[in-house]
Amino acid sequence: MNYPTRISKQIKKTSYGNRGMNLENELNETNNYYLVNDIAVIHKKPTPITITKVDYPSRIEAVIKEAYFKIPSTTDYNGIYKGKYIDFEAKETKNNNFPLANIHEHQIKHLEKVKNHGGISFLIVRFTLKNTTFLLETKYLLDFIEKEKRKSIPYDYFLKNGFIIKDKFNPRIDYLSIVDEILKRGEIV
Amino acid sequence: MNYPTRISKQIKKTSYGNRGMNLENELNETNNYYLVNDIAVIHKKPTPITITKVDYPSRIEAVIKEAYFKIPSTTDYNGIYKGKYIDFEAKETKNNNFPLANIHEHQIKHLEKVKNHGGISFLIVRFTLKNTTFLLETKYLLDFIEKEKRKSIPYDYFLKNGFIIKDKFNPRIDYLSIVDEILKRGEIV
Repeated sequence: MNYPTRISKQIKKTSYGNRGMNLENELNETNNYYLVNDIAVIHKKPTPITITKVDYPSRIEAVIKEAYFKIPSTTDYNGIYKGKYIDFEAKETKNNNFPLANIHEHQIKHLEKVKNHGGISFLIVRFTLKNTTFLLETKYLLDFIEKEKRKSIPYDYFLKNGFIIKDKFNPRIDYLSIVDEILKRGEIV
Repeated sequence: MNYPTRISKQIKKTSYGNRGMNLENELNETNNYYLVNDIAVIHKKPTPITITKVDYPSRIEAVIKEAYFKIPSTTDYNGIYKGKYIDFEAKETKNNNFPLANIHEHQIKHLEKVKNHGGISFLIVRFTLKNTTFLLETKYLLDFIEKEKRKSIPYDYFLKNGFIIKDKFNPRIDYLSIVDEILKRGEIV
C-alpha cells in the first residue's frame, strides 16, 4: 500500500505547483508534447475520489467540502497511438528493486486484460537513486508474478526484460519510441 | 454550461446511491457487463477535480476538505474493444433537440483527434422525453458543427445520421453492437 505517498504527492502538486520534476510531471509534459504535435492522444486520468459533501456558494461555483480517495480500479494513463490502444501505470521508487505493493492487484489485472484484448500495456518504473527509467511490458510483469515468490522485482530483471527510456530534452520521456520497437516485432496486429 | 447539472448528479449518486437509473448508471452497468464477460475493457474516468486542502486524521485515512470541479479536457469514457480504441461522451437531455453547449469545446476536439488517430469515437445521447438513446459518430457531430449555424442538433439529425441503441435487459445499453456495425463498414483498419 503506497497510498500515503500517492496522496502527499497529489497535495504537493496542487498546493505548491510543479517544483522539482518528478516522473508524473515529466509524463504530463511528454503526453502534452505528443498531443500538440499530433503524435498520440494519451492522458492521465483524474484521481478517483468519492464526494460526500458539496457547497454551492453560487450557481456556477461549487466547492467540495468532503471527499475521500478511492483505490483506483484501472491504471493512470491511457490513450491512442498509431491506431493502437495504449495503457500504462507509472511509478517511482527509491529502492534498488521495485516493490510489487506499489501496484494494486486490480491494476495488474487491468493491464493483463488490456494485453489480452490486443492493446499495448506496460509499466513505466523509475529508479530514482539510479536515475534510470524502464518500460516493462505486462507479459514480463505477469511472468515475474507467476514464477517468483519475491515481493519485489529486482533491478536486474528490468535490465534483462525491460527497455531503458533515455532522458531527452523534448519529449522528456519518449516512451513511444519504445512502443515503436514493440510494434516492429509485429506481434500486435 | 451544464456544470451544475453534472455536479448535482454526482452528489446524488454518491450520497444516496443509485436510485432511478439514469444514462450514467446504465452505462456503468453495461461496461461492467462487458468487463466481466471479457467482451471489452471500457471504464468511466473519474470526475476531474483540483484538491486544495486535505486532512490526515490517521496514516491510512485522508479526507479531502476542499476541492473544486475542473472542466474536463477529455471525454468520460474510453477503453478497448476488439483491439480498437473506443472513446465517447454520454449526455442526457430533456429537450427535443441536443444543445451543443452540453459538450465542452475541448471534448469535441478530443473526439476529433481520436477519430483522426484511428480510434472509434462517438456521442451517446439520450432524449429522456422520447426515451430514445442514440449513438452518433464523431464525423456527423463535426459535419453538423461545420455546416450548421444552429446551437442545437435536432432530433431528426440523430434519426437520419445516428444509430438507435435499443434498450435491453443485459447489457442495458448495448452500444458495442452498434460499434460492430461501424467496424463492418471496414473504414477503420
